[in-house]
Formats: sequence, C-alpha cells, structure tokens
Amino acid sequence: MKTTILATAALLVAGVAAVQAGTVPPAPNGIDLPENYRDWQVIASSHRVDNNTLRVILGNDIAVQAARSGNTRPWPDGAILGKLVWKDATLEAWEKAVVPGEFVHAEFMFKDSGKWADTGGWGFARWTGMDQQAYGEDASFVQECFGCHTPVKSNDYVFTLPAQLP
Amino acid sequence: MKTTILATAALLVAGVAAVQAGTVPPAPNGIDLPENYRDWQVIASSHRVDNNTLRVILGNDIAVQAARSGNTRPWPDGAILGKLVWKDATLEAWEKAVVPGEFVHAEFMFKDSGKWADTGGWGFARWTGMDQQAYGEDASFVQECFGCHTPVKSNDYVFTLPAQLP
Repeated sequence: MKTTILATAALLVAGVAAVQAGTVPPAPNGIDLPENYRDWQVIASSHRVDNNTLRVILGNDIAVQAARSGNTRPWPDGAILGKLVWKDATLEAWEKAVVPGEFVHAEFMFKDSGKWADTGGWGFARWTGMDQQAYGEDASFVQECFGCHTPVKSNDYVFTLPAQLP
Repeated sequence: MKTTILATAALLVAGVAAVQAGTVPPAPNGIDLPENYRDWQVIASSHRVDNNTLRVILGNDIAVQAARSGNTRPWPDGAILGKLVWKDATLEAWEKAVVPGEFVHAEFMFKDSGKWADTGGWGFARWTGMDQQAYGEDASFVQECFGCHTPVKSNDYVFTLPAQLP
C-alpha cells in the first residue's frame, strides 16, 4: 500500500539530522560506507513495480566519467555505483506522481577487478534504513548480491544503464 | 507504449557527444541554461504514471543545502531546481523495472524573489530534447508554467519534496 506524502511530513523528515560520518559500521566484508555518496552525480533512476520502490543510481567521479563516455563494459577499476532506494509514496499535490517515501537502503558496487575477482570484479555492500545498519550476517552475504547480478554478466554484472543526457 | 532498453542501444546513446556549452539558446524570458546542471546533486525523483515519464530532481548548491536543512518554505534566493525528464522504458534484464528511455527535457526553476516577483519569485525555463531547444514562443510561456504551479503555492510553488536521506 502506498503512502501519501504530505508536504509538512516531508519537511520534518528532511530536517532529521544526517547520520554522523564515522559512526556507520563497515559491511561484513570490510567495505566502508563512502562518506560523501550523497553528493555523487546521477547516472540513472528506476521504478521497480515488483516491489514498489523508487531508485536513484549515483556514481563517484570515476563511475560518472565512465558512464558519460560509454566506457562501462567493463566499468573501470575505482568506479563505485551507489543506489538509493525508497518505498513508493504518492505526492498529495499530484496524485499520479509516485515519489520517494520511506528510505529503504543505500547499496553500492565497488569495482576492483583484482580484489573482488571472485565476484565479477565487484565488491558489494548495503546499509539499511535511516540508521544505516550494515547488511549481512557475515561476509557470505555477497553471494546473495552476486547471484542476483550474475544474469547481467554480459553488462559487467550491472543492471543499470546510464540514462541519456544532452 | 513503453520501449525496452537494450544494453547495446543504451551504451550507444551514452556515447553521444554532449551538447557543447554556449551553443544552447536562452529561454524566451532571457534565462540561460545552467552550464553544469548535469553535475548537481539529487534532491528527489518521481515517476509520473499519467504521462509515463521518469524524473530526477537536482539542485544547485544553494538548493541542495536548503533541501537538506529543511529550509524550503520559502526556498532561498539563488536556489535553482532542475528536473531531468525521460520517457518510460523497460529494462530488458529486469522487466518489472521502469527505467529512463528517450530524454524529453530539462526544466528549471530559478528563485529570485525580487526579479521574478510576478511569478511567485521563480523564473521558469525549459529546454527540450537532446538538442536542447528553448521552450516557448515568447516570454509569455511562463504563464503556462506558473499556472500549473499555482496549486502548490503553499509549498512555495514547488511540487518536489526533498527525499529522505540518512
């Protein structure tokens, strides 16, 4: 069931203090949350209608440069892709607009073809919720990530296709 | 009707040369296209299911700082909001994902409560298509923009609500 975003509620949410840098635990495979991911540039967006979530896909400088120059097969070492995920909500002022509701998680793919050779050259990590809890019981959680991404091996294990931009 | 994004096609699209800075004509009201808007940070996203378009809402530094601190009623002078709009497409590798297809337009709201007092303190402008044609026959085009935004006067004429971020 979708929630409806009221302007007042969203403003209160926006005013919540950001999680302090350095207080977020690393993922069970040792990957740290990139500190400045909120400031990365946009590569694409998506709306998953199977689980009713909106997503924005961001990249660090290396990833954005690769995306804009079409050099993503493979993505270069050092590229990091970040996906911000929210539950669907309905904009009160425009009911045919699905907009970001509750924040679900931020998840990342770190390209290092040597370090992460066992999982297609990508290190996976996810932090859930507004309190950014590290996802996974132990380092084996990446098998879940990698298993889901294996069908897109021909696209360097990445679902995202860079959006067209002038 | 939705199109399906094939990985190869999208890579070709990503490789298209960006429109050269300085070659895009100003809007009929004299507003210039912000040169670096592709590099702005994310404020929100949306999926309009009435006209089947995906949107990412970006902001310049003043707008992003206002969004993240909850100071958007009113937005401060100097804030610029940019909206990138694409037609819906279906991701071939995940058919329940709606993703950006053909680029439709980039549209902007420039906050200057003095200069644009007649239209709620906002200057409006839009550039359509990959060749970034200035929208509007003459300066009166802003009445169309302002008319549509008037119902959200109580939210400083802005539909977008900043997405929740940790």
